[in-house]
Amino acid sequence: MIKGCQNECTAGGCSGETGKHTADSFKASDLIITPATTFKEKPDPSGLVFGTVFTDNMLTIEWSLASGWEKPYIKPLENLSLHPASSSLHYALELFEGMKAYRGVDGKIRLFRPTLNMERMARSAKRVTLPHFDQNELLECIRKLVEVEKEWVPYSTTASLYIRPTLIGTEPSLGVKTPTKALLYVILSPVGPYFASGSFNPISLWADPKYVRAWKGGTGDCKLGVNYGSSVYAQQEALELGCQQVLWLYGEDHQITEVGTMNLFLYWINEDGENELTTPPLDGIILPGVTRQSILDLACSWGEFKVSERYITMSDLTAALEEDRVKEMFGAGTACVVCPISKILYKGKHLHIPTMENGPQLTTRFLNKLSDIQSRSWQVTSHFI
Amino acid sequence: MIKGCQNECTAGGCSGETGKHTADSFKASDLIITPATTFKEKPDPSGLVFGTVFTDNMLTIEWSLASGWEKPYIKPLENLSLHPASSSLHYALELFEGMKAYRGVDGKIRLFRPTLNMERMARSAKRVTLPHFDQNELLECIRKLVEVEKEWVPYSTTASLYIRPTLIGTEPSLGVKTPTKALLYVILSPVGPYFASGSFNPISLWADPKYVRAWKGGTGDCKLGVNYGSSVYAQQEALELGCQQVLWLYGEDHQITEVGTMNLFLYWINEDGENELTTPPLDGIILPGVTRQSILDLACSWGEFKVSERYITMSDLTAALEEDRVKEMFGAGTACVVCPISKILYKGKHLHIPTMENGPQLTTRFLNKLSDIQSRSWQVTSHFI
Repeated sequence: MIKGCQNECTAGGCSGETGKHTADSFKASDLIITPATTFKEKPDPSGLVFGTVFTDNMLTIEWSLASGWEKPYIKPLENLSLHPASSSLHYALELFEGMKAYRGVDGKIRLFRPTLNMERMARSAKRVTLPHFDQNELLECIRKLVEVEKEWVPYSTTASLYIRPTLIGTEPSLGVKTPTKALLYVILSPVGPYFASGSFNPISLWADPKYVRAWKGGTGDCKLGVNYGSSVYAQQEALELGCQQVLWLYGEDHQITEVGTMNLFLYWINEDGENELTTPPLDGIILPGVTRQSILDLACSWGEFKVSERYITMSDLTAALEEDRVKEMFGAGTACVVCPISKILYKGKHLHIPTMENGPQLTTRFLNKLSDIQSRSWQVTSHFI
Repeated sequence: MIKGCQNECTAGGCSGETGKHTADSFKASDLIITPATTFKEKPDPSGLVFGTVFTDNMLTIEWSLASGWEKPYIKPLENLSLHPASSSLHYALELFEGMKAYRGVDGKIRLFRPTLNMERMARSAKRVTLPHFDQNELLECIRKLVEVEKEWVPYSTTASLYIRPTLIGTEPSLGVKTPTKALLYVILSPVGPYFASGSFNPISLWADPKYVRAWKGGTGDCKLGVNYGSSVYAQQEALELGCQQVLWLYGEDHQITEVGTMNLFLYWINEDGENELTTPPLDGIILPGVTRQSILDLACSWGEFKVSERYITMSDLTAALEEDRVKEMFGAGTACVVCPISKILYKGKHLHIPTMENGPQLTTRFLNKLSDIQSRSWQVTSHFI
């Protein structure tokens, strides 16, 4: 089944919720901006550890069932003051998004397809019974925040400003229920490569069916804290086994699903002898990644090889490796963009993936093309500030 | 398979972790107690809404990878000050426990089998990569907190003091990883019946396979926030359909697993014509409830009917209902103790469960026996204060 070659926004990222609750939303025009008057030193972009340094200001917007959304604030970054019974701390009623602002070669600052993140965020909120909001208004608030913090967007082609919108339940009582209070906030962090091994160094994966990331009837297709809290233990075990990330399997046939915090792509010669780029379909257990969709869109626009969203099992992969049909394998996500994979530890054996030996031609092409889009222009990139 | 009639602590609640990390733990003897000097008014026990009123003081203990556990504090209840990047707010690195302190007919205050909660809490911490602690030291800290707050333990046979130990990741960075900072805290709330419908009023359930609470390879057997965050949406849909809780199903054969926030018991005449009390086995997707284990222990000690931990499907249940073999069905948990079930909405049909018509004899007997144990004495009840 070839599914990649469709219009933008058909692959689960859009729920049709846009603007549904506009009347109940906060407004960017109500923003109250009282920025920091003391400033932290901005770090050298080359030495950044992912998500450890934050800018001087944050965006906060409070909500309650009784009063709806309050006015949005841009104010100095500070600790949150939360009731110890807050439902985010007990029942994981929380979600987040991950986006990046890039400083282009023309000096302008851009976000990459931010409406896809806003749509996914609205869908995540619905799934975890957190309040609706107008996606355009939030995006405009984020734009204002980035504008206030524009000097934090690294002057670098290998670094960017990571944007972390977050929505948490702040209901101060212990019954398990839809929260009557919530807090939406956005923090910013200048970032370099996600992995300590650096940008575009290949990573190794641990594939073991004993831990399962997501399941049918669960929440694996939304960007919720719950999907991550249950995964860190397996991630720790992967590290102990000398691997950097978990390759999540599903079902008795060990379907390949995702890699740690990334979507997964395989470029190979398939069973029919065709050159094919594949990634698992959005069947409810896969996160509909913005980078994932962009890679599918790009590959389809090139029209040079088959592009498929379909199931691949570990048996399919090992057979292809034995028959020398695997060309490249890589993860894709906002944090890393694309990340080549060189090894999979499965059933006690190290499977060598010849991604690097093959260039990696396609992985590099995607990295360069996406970087180019992010730093120059593309029809779906917001020209931002 | 008859599994209920074994010694205490064989059914998954005990992991053998007790004391393993004693040297790394905080000590109750280091407690720094600076209690509140102003006091809230204590509410009428008959009008309590579950988990909405909190006592004057809380217990807090900070941990970091660099320094280990700090000294424990008992201090006035206050908001937590958390970095907005805290891993509990983004990746649901968090867990909790639920326990109750009862004021006995002899005026003494008791906890019910608190070591089972401490053991489960240690197991939950391991699963979500939060730090180890000495379970006995935490229990002694909790004992001290309840002692400070002893006037908050209701003078009532239908109310008690709910104890909520909580452990959250406070890592202030955005990489998905084992946190290097954490906070353990305990808050107390005087509570009456869990359900607004009152104590021992029967509840209705919604059983639909489209939402799945837990799965093999996941975290359903630990008391983690992640198990609840993904469940509230289904709970909301149940309410919209006129049901109070979700009956979680599993697998293509629609196995019965849990009820909302409770374990599930069925008392029936089984396929072989035997009187039998059944609950699903602890196979990885079931929370090993303290009340669940206590009911199994009690039923086995009586020796009057078969006691089984085994799988029951919706087909088994509907066949038994048609053949008039179902006697009683009830939920069991710390919050509600036992809660009769009168109706299940399944595949668009309302299945009537004749729990109330049958007394409910057994459900009432468990409620009375457990209440008696909790308010008087039993060999596994801590004589507390």
